[in-house]
Amino acid sequence: MALGEFERIDRFFVPLARGADGAFGLTDDAALLPAASQGSAWVVTVDALVAGVHFLPDDAADLIARKALRVNLSDLAAMGAVPYGYTLALALPRDLPDPEGWLSRFADGLRHDQDEFGVHLLGGDSVSTPGPVTLSVTAFGSVPRGREIRRSGAKVGDDLWVSGTIGDSALGLKVLTGAIGPDEGGDSFLIDRYRLPQPRTRLGPRLVELATAALDVSDGLVQDSGHLAHRSGVAVRIEASAVPLSAAGRRRVDSRPALLHDALTGGDDYELLFTAPSIARESVMEAAAAVGAMVGRIGSVEAGQGVRVVDPDGQVLGGLNRGGWSHF
Amino acid sequence: MALGEFERIDRFFVPLARGADGAFGLTDDAALLPAASQGSAWVVTVDALVAGVHFLPDDAADLIARKALRVNLSDLAAMGAVPYGYTLALALPRDLPDPEGWLSRFADGLRHDQDEFGVHLLGGDSVSTPGPVTLSVTAFGSVPRGREIRRSGAKVGDDLWVSGTIGDSALGLKVLTGAIGPDEGGDSFLIDRYRLPQPRTRLGPRLVELATAALDVSDGLVQDSGHLAHRSGVAVRIEASAVPLSAAGRRRVDSRPALLHDALTGGDDYELLFTAPSIARESVMEAAAAVGAMVGRIGSVEAGQGVRVVDPDGQVLGGLNRGGWSHF
Repeated sequence: MALGEFERIDRFFVPLARGADGAFGLTDDAALLPAASQGSAWVVTVDALVAGVHFLPDDAADLIARKALRVNLSDLAAMGAVPYGYTLALALPRDLPDPEGWLSRFADGLRHDQDEFGVHLLGGDSVSTPGPVTLSVTAFGSVPRGREIRRSGAKVGDDLWVSGTIGDSALGLKVLTGAIGPDEGGDSFLIDRYRLPQPRTRLGPRLVELATAALDVSDGLVQDSGHLAHRSGVAVRIEASAVPLSAAGRRRVDSRPALLHDALTGGDDYELLFTAPSIARESVMEAAAAVGAMVGRIGSVEAGQGVRVVDPDGQVLGGLNRGGWSHF
Repeated sequence: MALGEFERIDRFFVPLARGADGAFGLTDDAALLPAASQGSAWVVTVDALVAGVHFLPDDAADLIARKALRVNLSDLAAMGAVPYGYTLALALPRDLPDPEGWLSRFADGLRHDQDEFGVHLLGGDSVSTPGPVTLSVTAFGSVPRGREIRRSGAKVGDDLWVSGTIGDSALGLKVLTGAIGPDEGGDSFLIDRYRLPQPRTRLGPRLVELATAALDVSDGLVQDSGHLAHRSGVAVRIEASAVPLSAAGRRRVDSRPALLHDALTGGDDYELLFTAPSIARESVMEAAAAVGAMVGRIGSVEAGQGVRVVDPDGQVLGGLNRGGWSHF
């Protein structure tokens, strides 16, 4: 017999709230946030995911849980915040086969990432839906008050940096959907990068007082550079050859150069894109090294507006302002 | 031509974030909560609503927005918290006719209630779904630290109180769905009570240091009394004749006494159910009067467990432990 709402909460979610005093074991109408530490502020962000839109309907429940949590942790990292906890709203299809099995795997995924990122479930709501699996996570982190990194602080002359590698997720999705054929190797890496973002939660807080602006790359490197440029009132120049690609990504692009476009505009990278004064180059490298993160200097901030992507000869690459970037 | 995601945010949601400094006009990856005032703590709660489950699919968009906000404000009130703001995750059907018109009405509803309850939009995410309208609100309020009202503090000998009137919403839904026929008068009142909860946001904070336990009545008076009894480790006795009914509710129950069952177990009341020492009776009445709220003393806290509903002769009314209350 199926479990009732309360049994489901007791079995799958209450254990995830242990360790967060103010969650009251999910027994009350609301949870308490602890006092922010001296000089710190609470940062809050929300992201919603829908099956068939933001993940594949047959993705494993633990991966769905982890992706939902991680895209929010990535937003916190972009502000320079240290993650603390999250609330969860989950709508499950009424006709989901084996809902307890699904919830068990879903909770396993959350537990895994709670341990990895040091966060706790603070509260939640679980409902049924005639539609697809739909979930939203609201995540909380703390940042030194007044030192949060925003999108609007980039200055002419700043360097443009990005963490990790770009394009893996977009290429992984193309492999998954058959839009590009299988390769001899590296496909599972690309697919994993699509399925499971790696939020830069340790790098973000290290960039406080170094980065002048930051965001996480979710819409695509070019589009998100456009967001940063727009909010900062500047132009951004990206050296295409400096954009870090993974070995698997490089191999794909080398064998079919048109895929560079997908890498630069595909999105779902969840890497940090940020600007910093050139005088801070050493400090940025040290901050990244201290947490084992890779960072690459990919361009610069200029007067003007918009984004230019240039090849090693300084020629502007065309056709990159599609895919949602039409706003700017 | 349909608006893009960014235009929709600019047009419908950015205006709702004005007045909340830390929301940054919804331009950043996350929002900042201001410092909780001296001696206060942030309280957070989340509720999800799905079309066809928590509201009727053809309900007006402004009412859906207001209901989603209000059920969360009701949770804050139950903890004794003063509301501050909220984040919103909204999944809209891809094939929604006239999405801009819908969003315009939805935002109008939010604006109305923001003005009424003094809250602001802090952040949000808007996505598309192949399923029904789905939304979740995470709401924030503040309460004197360590003075939040929980479900677990009821003591033997305490009075049991409820705000407002009970059963209107359940009876209103029955009218709406045709389960009971139309009446000569009062139907629109009952239906309004179903469609638009009236969260007791001004009463809740007044109960801090008076109430020993509280929650808001969403599952039904009897079931929620059971939750309070269970969490407090006590029994609750409800005098059926003392439960406040509205004029319209009374008229329905008088003409068909079996409807009393629906009133006591139907749910969606969003009134505050709370316990307080009998020595605090005057103070409770004064607190309610100070904010123009009605409160009624409907029973008492006893040793034992579970809920007994008794008639004026002291006879226990049977058949009331159905409807989701099987957990206890």
